[in-house]
Amino acid sequence: MVQSTTKPSVHKVGFISPPAWFDISPTEFLRIAPKNTIVMQAVMRLPDFNYQVDGVEQFINSVPELRACFNSLTESGADVVTQFGYPFSLAHGWEKANKVQKSIQGSSRTSFVMMGVEIVYAMKHLNCKSIAIASTYYSGKMSSILHEYLLEAGFKILHSENWQSQGIAEDKGSNLFIGDGELDPTAWKSPVDAIANAVRNVSKNASAADCILVSGGGMRLLDIAETLEKEVGKPVIGGDLAIYWGILRRLGIKRSVRGHGKLLANLV
Amino acid sequence: MVQSTTKPSVHKVGFISPPAWFDISPTEFLRIAPKNTIVMQAVMRLPDFNYQVDGVEQFINSVPELRACFNSLTESGADVVTQFGYPFSLAHGWEKANKVQKSIQGSSRTSFVMMGVEIVYAMKHLNCKSIAIASTYYSGKMSSILHEYLLEAGFKILHSENWQSQGIAEDKGSNLFIGDGELDPTAWKSPVDAIANAVRNVSKNASAADCILVSGGGMRLLDIAETLEKEVGKPVIGGDLAIYWGILRRLGIKRSVRGHGKLLANLV
Repeated sequence: MVQSTTKPSVHKVGFISPPAWFDISPTEFLRIAPKNTIVMQAVMRLPDFNYQVDGVEQFINSVPELRACFNSLTESGADVVTQFGYPFSLAHGWEKANKVQKSIQGSSRTSFVMMGVEIVYAMKHLNCKSIAIASTYYSGKMSSILHEYLLEAGFKILHSENWQSQGIAEDKGSNLFIGDGELDPTAWKSPVDAIANAVRNVSKNASAADCILVSGGGMRLLDIAETLEKEVGKPVIGGDLAIYWGILRRLGIKRSVRGHGKLLANLV
Repeated sequence: MVQSTTKPSVHKVGFISPPAWFDISPTEFLRIAPKNTIVMQAVMRLPDFNYQVDGVEQFINSVPELRACFNSLTESGADVVTQFGYPFSLAHGWEKANKVQKSIQGSSRTSFVMMGVEIVYAMKHLNCKSIAIASTYYSGKMSSILHEYLLEAGFKILHSENWQSQGIAEDKGSNLFIGDGELDPTAWKSPVDAIANAVRNVSKNASAADCILVSGGGMRLLDIAETLEKEVGKPVIGGDLAIYWGILRRLGIKRSVRGHGKLLANLV
């Protein structure tokens, strides 16, 4: 009996990027993706969007824009579309964020992977129940929103630190995001040393945690997760890893991605 | 005396892609770009856009959408923004297309490279005056629009062939684009053999031409220009090469890109 192969000749992946930020995720993803993968990107257009405010309303109100981006990428032929940036999920709360994801995906044959939704499934996949958080450039207010979201999703939060509690940035209480200079969250490059130190600090102060979660999404872990996990002895998970994991799973990839931490090594 | 260096640490390049088409230009460009280059992409959103019509109005009417894409990429920090697809220039005519380019670029510090405008400057840069055209998937009507545009820009057109005149697709007279199956212009992949044959045919029938122009933009030459040029003995130029050339020049890159034809080898 001849088995028919349904393997596609090419995997088409779409990325939705937040406004006014240079997001290199599509090309970074290609480094770990199967060779027959091609990528596209749509930038959210929110002319009035402002990273320097203290309210989450603009994230809640951006659902129609996420939908428009999703549609433009499915019309281009994407098999999977992902979305960068936790707050576009966090702002809704866990249950509602799932509804947003399902609503945008709708009856499309294209899957929709939201960073804030996927990080929960990723941590559950690795059987993490009690977690410690390095929330880096999240202000106290934004960290609280993250905590509420994760509690609603069923996690126990043992410990949490941000740039402010680590003494390297000031939280003036008026913004969702903090940090400037090397720590400026709107810069395209992740501050590798600061992230590594944040993970080490959090690990020391919460040795019982099943894993360490790094937020926000701009703090890329792809190139440091493996080393950090060896150092702290537990999974170190973040937004970049979560969406790449989510995409690869939607594409039906089962083969472990090696060298980038436990999550990408566990696609099944 | 210490010389100050003004070299940027990274080149940020934005790509505007036409609607409902999987455009791999950003990642393709990275293959020939300086290592410190990062890319982003914005997809045009024109929900009513239809590749199966015979009018150019939708290209003329898409200027506001081009502008919105340009702005979203400059807000993300792009140093140069390019735009894929000849007809978004051709539909205006040469003089007007230049005005559109200047109007969108405005007073931005970010340069705007339009494919249809840049191809003219590229051919003039190589001192091409009389040209032969492989217009591949352009219908008779679209080929005429291209001819008028190039005549207005000052070229002498010695010869032109499309899939129809080459006997491999049917021009029903009702569309701007022709071809299906392997020649479907809305597929993401270029039909390499058909392009090579088209260039050979056109070369045979117009031996006096200074260069051979391949349109439309979907017919990628990056991987075949060098070989074809050796075969036909003159420059073979197309939309992909023209925008990559235009970007590299705007970034101030002077070092020849080798192995991809005469245009990219002549950045200065």
